[in-house]
Amino acid sequence: MKTLITGGTVVGPLGATPTDVLVDGETIAALYAPGVASASGVVADKVLDATGKYVIPGGVDVHTHMQLPFGGTFASDTFETGTIAAAWGGTTTIIDFAVQRAGEVVQDGLAAWHAKADGNCAIDYGFHMIVGGVDDDALKAMDYLVEHEGITSFKLFMAYPGVFYSDDGQILRAMQKASDNGALIMMHAENGIAIDVLAAQALARGQTDPVYHGVTRPSALEGEATHRATVLAQVAGNTPLYFVHMSASEALGVVSAARSAGRNVFAETCPQYLYLTLEDQLGAPGFEGAKWVASPPLRPRDEPHRDDLWRGLRTDDLAVVSTDHCPFCFKDQKELGRGDFTKIPNGIGTVEHRVDLVYQGVASGRLSLQRWVETVSTTPARMFGLYPRKGIVAPGSDADIVIYDPNATTTIGVATHHMNLDHSAWEGFEIAGKVDTVLSRGTVVVADGAFHGRAGHGQYLRRGLTQYLR
Amino acid sequence: MKTLITGGTVVGPLGATPTDVLVDGETIAALYAPGVASASGVVADKVLDATGKYVIPGGVDVHTHMQLPFGGTFASDTFETGTIAAAWGGTTTIIDFAVQRAGEVVQDGLAAWHAKADGNCAIDYGFHMIVGGVDDDALKAMDYLVEHEGITSFKLFMAYPGVFYSDDGQILRAMQKASDNGALIMMHAENGIAIDVLAAQALARGQTDPVYHGVTRPSALEGEATHRATVLAQVAGNTPLYFVHMSASEALGVVSAARSAGRNVFAETCPQYLYLTLEDQLGAPGFEGAKWVASPPLRPRDEPHRDDLWRGLRTDDLAVVSTDHCPFCFKDQKELGRGDFTKIPNGIGTVEHRVDLVYQGVASGRLSLQRWVETVSTTPARMFGLYPRKGIVAPGSDADIVIYDPNATTTIGVATHHMNLDHSAWEGFEIAGKVDTVLSRGTVVVADGAFHGRAGHGQYLRRGLTQYLR
Amino acid sequence: MKTLITGGTVVGPLGATPTDVLVDGETIAALYAPGVASASGVVADKVLDATGKYVIPGGVDVHTHMQLPFGGTFASDTFETGTIAAAWGGTTTIIDFAVQRAGEVVQDGLAAWHAKADGNCAIDYGFHMIVGGVDDDALKAMDYLVEHEGITSFKLFMAYPGVFYSDDGQILRAMQKASDNGALIMMHAENGIAIDVLAAQALARGQTDPVYHGVTRPSALEGEATHRATVLAQVAGNTPLYFVHMSASEALGVVSAARSAGRNVFAETCPQYLYLTLEDQLGAPGFEGAKWVASPPLRPRDEPHRDDLWRGLRTDDLAVVSTDHCPFCFKDQKELGRGDFTKIPNGIGTVEHRVDLVYQGVASGRLSLQRWVETVSTTPARMFGLYPRKGIVAPGSDADIVIYDPNATTTIGVATHHMNLDHSAWEGFEIAGKVDTVLSRGTVVVADGAFHGRAGHGQYLRRGLTQYLR
Amino acid sequence: MKTLITGGTVVGPLGATPTDVLVDGETIAALYAPGVASASGVVADKVLDATGKYVIPGGVDVHTHMQLPFGGTFASDTFETGTIAAAWGGTTTIIDFAVQRAGEVVQDGLAAWHAKADGNCAIDYGFHMIVGGVDDDALKAMDYLVEHEGITSFKLFMAYPGVFYSDDGQILRAMQKASDNGALIMMHAENGIAIDVLAAQALARGQTDPVYHGVTRPSALEGEATHRATVLAQVAGNTPLYFVHMSASEALGVVSAARSAGRNVFAETCPQYLYLTLEDQLGAPGFEGAKWVASPPLRPRDEPHRDDLWRGLRTDDLAVVSTDHCPFCFKDQKELGRGDFTKIPNGIGTVEHRVDLVYQGVASGRLSLQRWVETVSTTPARMFGLYPRKGIVAPGSDADIVIYDPNATTTIGVATHHMNLDHSAWEGFEIAGKVDTVLSRGTVVVADGAFHGRAGHGQYLRRGLTQYLR
Repeated sequence: MKTLITGGTVVGPLGATPTDVLVDGETIAALYAPGVASASGVVADKVLDATGKYVIPGGVDVHTHMQLPFGGTFASDTFETGTIAAAWGGTTTIIDFAVQRAGEVVQDGLAAWHAKADGNCAIDYGFHMIVGGVDDDALKAMDYLVEHEGITSFKLFMAYPGVFYSDDGQILRAMQKASDNGALIMMHAENGIAIDVLAAQALARGQTDPVYHGVTRPSALEGEATHRATVLAQVAGNTPLYFVHMSASEALGVVSAARSAGRNVFAETCPQYLYLTLEDQLGAPGFEGAKWVASPPLRPRDEPHRDDLWRGLRTDDLAVVSTDHCPFCFKDQKELGRGDFTKIPNGIGTVEHRVDLVYQGVASGRLSLQRWVETVSTTPARMFGLYPRKGIVAPGSDADIVIYDPNATTTIGVATHHMNLDHSAWEGFEIAGKVDTVLSRGTVVVADGAFHGRAGHGQYLRRGLTQYLR
Repeated sequence: MKTLITGGTVVGPLGATPTDVLVDGETIAALYAPGVASASGVVADKVLDATGKYVIPGGVDVHTHMQLPFGGTFASDTFETGTIAAAWGGTTTIIDFAVQRAGEVVQDGLAAWHAKADGNCAIDYGFHMIVGGVDDDALKAMDYLVEHEGITSFKLFMAYPGVFYSDDGQILRAMQKASDNGALIMMHAENGIAIDVLAAQALARGQTDPVYHGVTRPSALEGEATHRATVLAQVAGNTPLYFVHMSASEALGVVSAARSAGRNVFAETCPQYLYLTLEDQLGAPGFEGAKWVASPPLRPRDEPHRDDLWRGLRTDDLAVVSTDHCPFCFKDQKELGRGDFTKIPNGIGTVEHRVDLVYQGVASGRLSLQRWVETVSTTPARMFGLYPRKGIVAPGSDADIVIYDPNATTTIGVATHHMNLDHSAWEGFEIAGKVDTVLSRGTVVVADGAFHGRAGHGQYLRRGLTQYLR
Repeated sequence: MKTLITGGTVVGPLGATPTDVLVDGETIAALYAPGVASASGVVADKVLDATGKYVIPGGVDVHTHMQLPFGGTFASDTFETGTIAAAWGGTTTIIDFAVQRAGEVVQDGLAAWHAKADGNCAIDYGFHMIVGGVDDDALKAMDYLVEHEGITSFKLFMAYPGVFYSDDGQILRAMQKASDNGALIMMHAENGIAIDVLAAQALARGQTDPVYHGVTRPSALEGEATHRATVLAQVAGNTPLYFVHMSASEALGVVSAARSAGRNVFAETCPQYLYLTLEDQLGAPGFEGAKWVASPPLRPRDEPHRDDLWRGLRTDDLAVVSTDHCPFCFKDQKELGRGDFTKIPNGIGTVEHRVDLVYQGVASGRLSLQRWVETVSTTPARMFGLYPRKGIVAPGSDADIVIYDPNATTTIGVATHHMNLDHSAWEGFEIAGKVDTVLSRGTVVVADGAFHGRAGHGQYLRRGLTQYLR
Repeated sequence: MKTLITGGTVVGPLGATPTDVLVDGETIAALYAPGVASASGVVADKVLDATGKYVIPGGVDVHTHMQLPFGGTFASDTFETGTIAAAWGGTTTIIDFAVQRAGEVVQDGLAAWHAKADGNCAIDYGFHMIVGGVDDDALKAMDYLVEHEGITSFKLFMAYPGVFYSDDGQILRAMQKASDNGALIMMHAENGIAIDVLAAQALARGQTDPVYHGVTRPSALEGEATHRATVLAQVAGNTPLYFVHMSASEALGVVSAARSAGRNVFAETCPQYLYLTLEDQLGAPGFEGAKWVASPPLRPRDEPHRDDLWRGLRTDDLAVVSTDHCPFCFKDQKELGRGDFTKIPNGIGTVEHRVDLVYQGVASGRLSLQRWVETVSTTPARMFGLYPRKGIVAPGSDADIVIYDPNATTTIGVATHHMNLDHSAWEGFEIAGKVDTVLSRGTVVVADGAFHGRAGHGQYLRRGLTQYLR
């Protein structure tokens, strides 16, 4: 089965060039200068006309939490519903987080996540491992996962004491291990010990509304934790370090300084921190703000966070845009926290909209076309050891390809989205641009406004070490 | 009883001026331009000729630990021996640390320290309070001590888990309290949680010598804790924050940045960090290095710490030189840690030598004459609410006065020192300059190479709030 | 003639203390703790009751331009009118700028200024030397003035090409000379070459109003010149460097960084930059803004300059507040620039109001009482080699003393001021506080709302090298 | 004429992938996954076996000075000898500098350079324009060159007063023009006014040897000029700014800060600054050091410049490695400066060795393989508007391709090099790696150790605007 994509402009991190793409089976077989394929008699079973459109590598969302247990409930997207929604939105790879909790065996946690995902994914997927209980066994398991399971990134939490929290000694030990085996440490950087004091004080004052979730997690405490982790990584032996869901100017400043010093320190942000605010969304009247309760929280409107994050995307101090997709329905789930914001399940659902939302940066002139592709696909693939299989339109790569129409438009809302979620954090957003056609490993899974894929098409990705070091 | 000090040059933070000083009873009654006192017929019971000498306010050592219980033993100087030694060295005020441990009542800890000191001190003394267990009662006690006990500074530890350690939530709460009542938070800033991991790993590798005390407490972890405390103080409401015994360039950089930003963040260093090194002292052959085991540790010779600390003294990023006087004899005390550096009692004894050692900065051209007086007397007094009673030669101030002879010399060593200590961390140091005469509240306590004071002369000082804010 | 000032609170940079002051002839003879003078039978010819008032050292204004020739006219205050106005405002010392222009002999310029001032000043005065033409002769003259004339500070201009401008080579040579002879280089730091391009472009666009004076001198170009001078001083051998009339956050940032690095770099600001703005004053309707044309210009209201300058005063990154007093009447003088802002004589008249205006920082809680005295008197005296003769209330110092009443008020305006100026840049400002009594070298020159001094009382001050190095 | 390159690993900025490359005529027609070309029956006239070798885009050297008139002589390489040497070394594009001197017509200068190059180049070439006399005509000419001549980058000098020097006003005006028309300003950033003072002082002291060329151009003055230009570009309207031949840590720090702030500020360095030092080369005995006289100079061995520059290459604060190829023979040319270092023609010849020298960073582990290709080819092409025609192995791009053998070695020296130069600045350097085969627009110009190209093959490149903005 050969597919020829003709007339489009292939966009990658270096630029945009008119190029024809030949897919053979699951991979890309050849790239041709315009006219060459026809002149040299290339024959294809199917031809996709991409004239006037961008041909980009499928999106890689490295931060999702399908059906994550949290706060007594589960994230509402299964691997099936979540990966189908992702495909609709031009994302052809996700990396989800398997979880080990304190006292559990790491491999058992991984097995549980494999059981949830296996046979259910519409697109390819990999796993990071959350290590919620760093001890001797967990450290040994890190070696095992790198060598035998294709899991090369491990997430630690400086927040959520009693749940996922690691203390600085545990963090140091895990970083030392990563320094040895080449893995990447992913960090949730908020000073959870201090935050819990502020949250308890707020509740004691009767401040129970969703907005206090944001008020009690000041950006300074994200900056502090970011700094601390950066120092611990240095002490551990210059462990590669990746900050998830960065939301705060203070944190970005730490990363920027470390990167200027040549450190292998990286960060991602998420669409919500680029567009939404504490006042406008989290502070919505009544309990409405619960929809946007996530950690770190949306930041105050008049502070410089959003502008700084956009700048960070331009300068590569922010290397990746992921979603931190962790959907909870309003009814029965978000509602668990009525009267106590600390009981609202943390999470926002965005896996379907990331490629579109970041493209708005291009449409509005805040981001270059190349940088769009780099932050939603190429760098995530390189960062997490999937390149060149993923993240690039190149011969030999998996044929994960999105044809993106910059002249069409998309409206986001609960009525049309495909995530298993009874509301949308992005209700009413008008998008310049539209995902037109999506191929996953050579198969057209989205085209003509319809889903043509299937649960089970997606394969587990064994990943190599990060390819983004310097 | 009136004493006239004539012919000397009074030195203060602003400069040096020939001035005669009239002491009446316990306080300074008047200052005269040269010639005025004699011309106007001032009559004194005693005349001290200070011709060719400096007349400076008595030294204020704000960091001592007399007879501190630590690691199963006690610091070897009692309030009597320690304060006599201090007087010999030109220090006329100490502020020692009363201790509350977790589970204890703060006021009980204070009472215990009063019991040790009362009637035994040769010079005036005050107390800071170590809060080793921040809880609701301890927080209330902070208010009480500020209002009723003249204790306006509270020390917390980010090191020594299980002993004095406070977690970030406890620190935040204590800082909030200080933000309310105006007290100063004093911080031992080392990331003790990470350090304990490194120390355990070293021991497990058989690295038991004293030098590993230094190796396992890298300067980056002092910098980290300093940054963290600075952020927590900001979150707490810009609590005034004072870092004790700063030893590391990274930490100084944090303080310098905060101060440039206008924050009320302060630091002291100690003579050992200005002169001694990890290799030369802590790494001395055999178990000899145990003499210099203190926390934070002496720093590596080839790193920029010492030069940076001297610069910090010049720029006022380091406001104070204290001693962290905490003497343990080599025999039976330091020896507790043979074969396990973590069991060596932490501390160095310097209370007798601080004024002399800092004066070497003047003698070598690294520090101005004014800055010497400022860092050993005036600023400590202002920082801890004792000004103008202490720290200045001015009408109305306590007549705590040192006549310092810049042309004499002093040799330091166990054979001649007055501390209760079987060795000297400064053995063989040759000092340009000499403490000539010392007055404590108008009484000559050191003169002509003899001690004329007495235990019990020293009075407890109720202190006001810090006067060093901006 | 002895004068006793009783009941007041003497304020200096270290604090405020109730102290009685005995003046004998031109100097301060003694300071007494309260009650001591009377108890010991001190007899005075005159007693000034300062109860409830501050007793501070007379103000030292180190930046004035009496009768300066500029743009075809002369600053409107003579040394007589200007120094009388200064005395009214609590300033008892000025340092004015003698001028050498390119091609002139430095000593001739100095002689001309002596001729203007000699016998005409109501208070003591010194001179800095503007070197407008750095060449071999001028460099030799710098040595001569330091050794024989008591002139130890030399001002260079990076602005005003063709008038006072020195190029970077000239600046470097003058700095090398100062590095050798210990003089202080004072710098007008604006990139005048670039500014002249912007100004010419504005005029060519028909932008001739006063506000364009500000628009064409962006703060970035003050920052640039400040940085450049700081580097040149380093290359020259760490020449002590003092920036005059700092107005811009960018410039302050450069100074702050250099100072944290231990460099002997200093700066002053002026009241206009602390209170007034480009929009509110310089942009006043019609030609009204001409009153506030000075260089550097008032800065935009919504930029952080004013807040940063206040912070700089607190942190000592700004060491001094001077006036840059350079008054031009509106009529016939400022009016020279109608239709062409580049022809408006540059200058604002403030010599009478500086002590009051900075005190407003105390009244509003932005500055400590001590820091007020330090920035308007003590540091200027130390910076320019006048201490302890000036800048402090201490035995042996000149009896330049101001009794300041914090409970009275002052209204500023052309109707009441004593400067020779047909308008006031501060019209209508209401001051909390009032200069009550002023002594110059022991003589009461202002008291009871009347001037009791005389032109000719003021003496020329030979100054030593700066005493503010570290 | 079709050429198939098989078996090689194509290396680009994103990674290295086994790929076959089909060249058709002058351009790349297609890229194939391994095996695809043969399986699909692709027929080629010539097959190049690249097994075990890297296939990289031809080098782009954006800083050469062929036959530049300087100091009364001419750079010794003509466009013919220089471009042949470049081809030998794997560089297939140069951008040379046409020169307008003050008083000349820009277009005349350009015409003169076209006359030198036309028909004489062995590889493709473009021009930057040196504007040595910024005036109204020159500013208009900048628009003309951008629109009609394919010249989109203009070089200014802050050094060489009286030769190429522009003052800050001229720089500002040229930057404003570039801000309007999208051109890139290239800057030689050294404070030449200050340097000339230092050089004259050295000569006056009898310091005439080559090493004083370095001593009188301290790195602080490169940092200063870099800062100044960065500020001027901001004032001009955020003009894109590119610093040539960066050599100093201070300068790199300025660029790094500007880039972190999101500014479009870029820099190149040259191999000499990465490897050679003031003491080891410039300070060689006798007059030998003259070989390495270039501006900026080689930097002191014990200062951090070289390490910092390597780090800058890793972090992209240094985006490009060029040569600043400006060869002068020792005999009769360098010798002009015997007895007066200021008369030594400035320049080093490296055009033949750049690709090899930067590859040593890969061989020694200081630089990634991808970054090698990026800094010597891809980024220079993107920076100067040549992408994707140059700088990438991609369909549609010019077939400028180098087959590089990482397992062979190269020895550099005057006996074997092809530059018209009687010595080598790199004599005896042993290179791990070797340029194996070079194609220029589809023609093999170097293969089997022989040159197969011809003068005149190279074409003039009209360039677009920089594609490296963000």
